Amino acid sequence: MILHGYFRSSAAYRVRIALNMKGLLARQVSHHLRREEQRAPAYLALNPQGLVPTLITESGAVLTQSLAILEWLDETHPHPPLLPREPLARAHVRAFAYAIACDIHPVQNLKVLAEVRKLGGEDAAAEWARRVNQDGLDACEAMLKDWTGPFCFGAAPTLADICLVPQLVNARRFGADLSRWPKLTAIEAACKALPAFADAAPENQPDAE
Amino acid sequence: MILHGYFRSSAAYRVRIALNMKGLLARQVSHHLRREEQRAPAYLALNPQGLVPTLITESGAVLTQSLAILEWLDETHPHPPLLPREPLARAHVRAFAYAIACDIHPVQNLKVLAEVRKLGGEDAAAEWARRVNQDGLDACEAMLKDWTGPFCFGAAPTLADICLVPQLVNARRFGADLSRWPKLTAIEAACKALPAFADAAPENQPDAE
Repeated sequence: MILHGYFRSSAAYRVRIALNMKGLLARQVSHHLRREEQRAPAYLALNPQGLVPTLITESGAVLTQSLAILEWLDETHPHPPLLPREPLARAHVRAFAYAIACDIHPVQNLKVLAEVRKLGGEDAAAEWARRVNQDGLDACEAMLKDWTGPFCFGAAPTLADICLVPQLVNARRFGADLSRWPKLTAIEAACKALPAFADAAPENQPDAE
Repeated sequence: MILHGYFRSSAAYRVRIALNMKGLLARQVSHHLRREEQRAPAYLALNPQGLVPTLITESGAVLTQSLAILEWLDETHPHPPLLPREPLARAHVRAFAYAIACDIHPVQNLKVLAEVRKLGGEDAAAEWARRVNQDGLDACEAMLKDWTGPFCFGAAPTLADICLVPQLVNARRFGADLSRWPKLTAIEAACKALPAFADAAPENQPDAE
């Protein structure tokens, strides 16, 4: 398999974690986002959104959108599972994952922050990024009201943890106050103790700067 | 079941379509978003994100995030399916749905547009909303390169169509040029001919203004 990504992309980071959890190897191809390499015509032919990641499967199929890739990985390589078996439990895990993947991450990506910077300058962009992470993760902490740990939803990491850990990297980078989230940071610590998460971290990728 | 929503919410609209497709009834409770009724403490206790929709199941379980609700509906009420059976086909449908639900919809919601308005005024907010829809749906049109119709992915509507039709309402409202998308608009016409979609339209809801 080939994973088109970038060390700092939260969405590519999610897929790296899942590949590691499943014990799958993928050759990484890096696209430097600030240099807009993801907008090159050859890459747009694979991924018309011009986003990373894209996963090329062993049969040559082209998969885009990190959450669709995660669900595909889970359906085709079921062990260990990324989702619980019971539909209600699956819905809670997915809701948490989407609270990050829909309502936080895309609202603070490079492209959106560049537009905010045009309107309000550097300070406005920094404040936007901090606030989107802080408000969004405040809600995530509140979504875990029945939390028992160590992971978001019980004894094993799921899609929820796979979305959370990369987002906390952004939250920290953008200056959010992490002491607001005792549950989320405890979960992060539990995840980081696992090789699947540690090996997927941005600083451990070949294209890390 | 009880569906907490709002006639104009694209995310609630998705759930209304799916409930209709599955032949399920839910009592609708409306939360006026511009009056910030979704921020009332009683509602936040159900949905810490302060977003619609929230679905209360017949057993009293509380489900949030429209896509998590759609997957739950499909897992618990499999007929007619909202996703194809084959993993690769499921991944393509989900990627299209997420291209809308992650990369378009949250970047042009009420809250984000209010922030843009603060930075750049009314014209900047209008241009932002138009551009997010136009760029995002350009990519969606390109994602359908093997399209044969009548729906996004074949002979029956899926999660992809359920996300597309409400987003086109926004695109139109925000002044995007719909002639750019011959495939998407043909799909919209096919969907609107189905009672499940027509009955779910914003203008046909009890709280429509």
